[in-house]
Amino acid sequence: MKRVKNVAEHKEKIAVIGAGSWGTALALVLADNGHQVNLWMRTEEQKNEINERRTNHKYLPGISLPENISAFTSLKEALEGTDTEIIAVPTKAIRETMKKISGIINNPTTFVHVSKGIEPDSLKRISEMIEEEVPAELLKAVVVLSGPSHAEEVSLRHPTTVTVSSKNMEEAEKVQDLFMNQHFRVYTNPDLLGVEIGGALKNIIALAAGISDGLGYGDNAKAALITRGLAEISRLGTKMGANPLTFSGLAGIGDLIVTCTSVHSRNWKAGNMLGKGHNLDEVLESMGMVVEGVRTAKAAHQLAKKYDTNLPITEALYNVLFNSVEAKAAVDQLMQRLKKNEMEDLVDILSEQMEQK
Amino acid sequence: MKRVKNVAEHKEKIAVIGAGSWGTALALVLADNGHQVNLWMRTEEQKNEINERRTNHKYLPGISLPENISAFTSLKEALEGTDTEIIAVPTKAIRETMKKISGIINNPTTFVHVSKGIEPDSLKRISEMIEEEVPAELLKAVVVLSGPSHAEEVSLRHPTTVTVSSKNMEEAEKVQDLFMNQHFRVYTNPDLLGVEIGGALKNIIALAAGISDGLGYGDNAKAALITRGLAEISRLGTKMGANPLTFSGLAGIGDLIVTCTSVHSRNWKAGNMLGKGHNLDEVLESMGMVVEGVRTAKAAHQLAKKYDTNLPITEALYNVLFNSVEAKAAVDQLMQRLKKNEMEDLVDILSEQMEQK
Repeated sequence: MKRVKNVAEHKEKIAVIGAGSWGTALALVLADNGHQVNLWMRTEEQKNEINERRTNHKYLPGISLPENISAFTSLKEALEGTDTEIIAVPTKAIRETMKKISGIINNPTTFVHVSKGIEPDSLKRISEMIEEEVPAELLKAVVVLSGPSHAEEVSLRHPTTVTVSSKNMEEAEKVQDLFMNQHFRVYTNPDLLGVEIGGALKNIIALAAGISDGLGYGDNAKAALITRGLAEISRLGTKMGANPLTFSGLAGIGDLIVTCTSVHSRNWKAGNMLGKGHNLDEVLESMGMVVEGVRTAKAAHQLAKKYDTNLPITEALYNVLFNSVEAKAAVDQLMQRLKKNEMEDLVDILSEQMEQK
Repeated sequence: MKRVKNVAEHKEKIAVIGAGSWGTALALVLADNGHQVNLWMRTEEQKNEINERRTNHKYLPGISLPENISAFTSLKEALEGTDTEIIAVPTKAIRETMKKISGIINNPTTFVHVSKGIEPDSLKRISEMIEEEVPAELLKAVVVLSGPSHAEEVSLRHPTTVTVSSKNMEEAEKVQDLFMNQHFRVYTNPDLLGVEIGGALKNIIALAAGISDGLGYGDNAKAALITRGLAEISRLGTKMGANPLTFSGLAGIGDLIVTCTSVHSRNWKAGNMLGKGHNLDEVLESMGMVVEGVRTAKAAHQLAKKYDTNLPITEALYNVLFNSVEAKAAVDQLMQRLKKNEMEDLVDILSEQMEQK
């Protein structure tokens, strides 16, 4: 067993693109490890708040940001002198952001993406979108960082574990070293596809779990939904080529649990409002932040067709979001549709997994 | 796919032995399905409360019990005219209870046990203890009923899913029919050992999760513990002969999630107090109900040796409970002991699972 270093020895200048709660919390981890962090955001107001008052109150209230985080609204200035960029923008903004970055950088760069989604219609994962938008000569590696990690808790230095993955595992290990410290434990997993799919699809199950809670159905019902949700993610992911074991790990069941049961989860909150009878437009308006699961539900609905896979929770959620099916009717039907023998479903999944090996 | 009946057509007289929260909630499900339920308990006071006021306020406050539940303190009277008995006493009381019942009954009987534990030293599961205590000519079948099912929510008719298993699956299916209704969905799984082991070991992980919460470590840390806990249960259970898929189902991850994340969970509550600095004696005294995980931790510590299996969470908990190790030191060490590559651990588990097939 290799000994894990507690603090990165090598200090770098790193750009974090996007200063929402997750981008800011990751900037804080890097700054704790002694790196110089250039944090990019859109508005002058937020930039001035960070540079002058050392806070980002809208996204991480009560947290003080150290001096080695510098805020920028100029992408060119933020990228200056860096060759590792953390991409912390919503899935919807990935292509546009990567196009802009590609127009500025000159050297091969490692992009670490930390968002969770799949693009509808193209059905591309985020690493694939980045590969498409960045010219090969500027692309050193794409690394994904994922796992059970609410930004609020990371910023409070609560113990957190995440997984990194890449086609280029040597670069993934470098990213592991950049982030690893006593509170923030980073593990590697070579299954890039599985890590990305697990992260994206869990938001769908979190919306469904939120609906169940919004209907007042309680913890027994939610545990049943999460259990079946993991089976559903595992079934689709394995068909797409993921290693089924990934879904038993931090980026699978770990992230699924935290997103479905934590008060911090945006997707759960949105589902909760749907369960209480609000419609999608009202929910999205009142959230004021991106709810990745809504867009991912569209993509997963298309993936179910493409891979000829049965995704009952995804379909139920899709119907609530886009076909005006009542939340209560959808969840009630889900709860009653398991086969009489639980193992029939599970054995289907295992046979698929065995074929995969 | 067989159509699932919503309410049992065949009405029976059934004894429920033990009127704690779970025994009473299950009596209510059976009564909702039209069966006559004889509910046995120790004290006259509780019997009179149920028969006269139709409540059991200590265990299920606010719930009204229907007329087809009759309370008894005489075991002989409670068993009269029944050939299905629901055994809802703590693991510690199983042998004594079964001895008494065996001295009374004359006909082959089906025992449905609904408790979750393993006997220290003998390392017997509950179904094995029942088989040892009941003479063969009086034993028709032992069925286990397990899954994510807080009694409080079941008594409120919130949607709940459970699994039944037995060496005699025909009897398990009869039990499925007795309990199945619109709110309480019962599935079968032929893996008796896996269902019993999943139920027993999850209480250990719930104690650990409670400790983490008591230390104020948050949802990220808890999700990591649950993820590793599932791997640990799966590793030991598979070595003992369980089907690894059982741990991906309701009696595995489903029950684990609900016990680790719900405010109703006794084992979580006990862990939470330990995390806040109370010692074991204080915790057990203040709980006033049985905390199964404490005794199960002893048994699992012995099982780890017997099956030469690495159970880091169990060992950490065992040291906190019985070797005066400080809770914070134990959890901190756990969070830092994952291998650097997450998959190394997981691949070990899969190889064991593959050999099993």
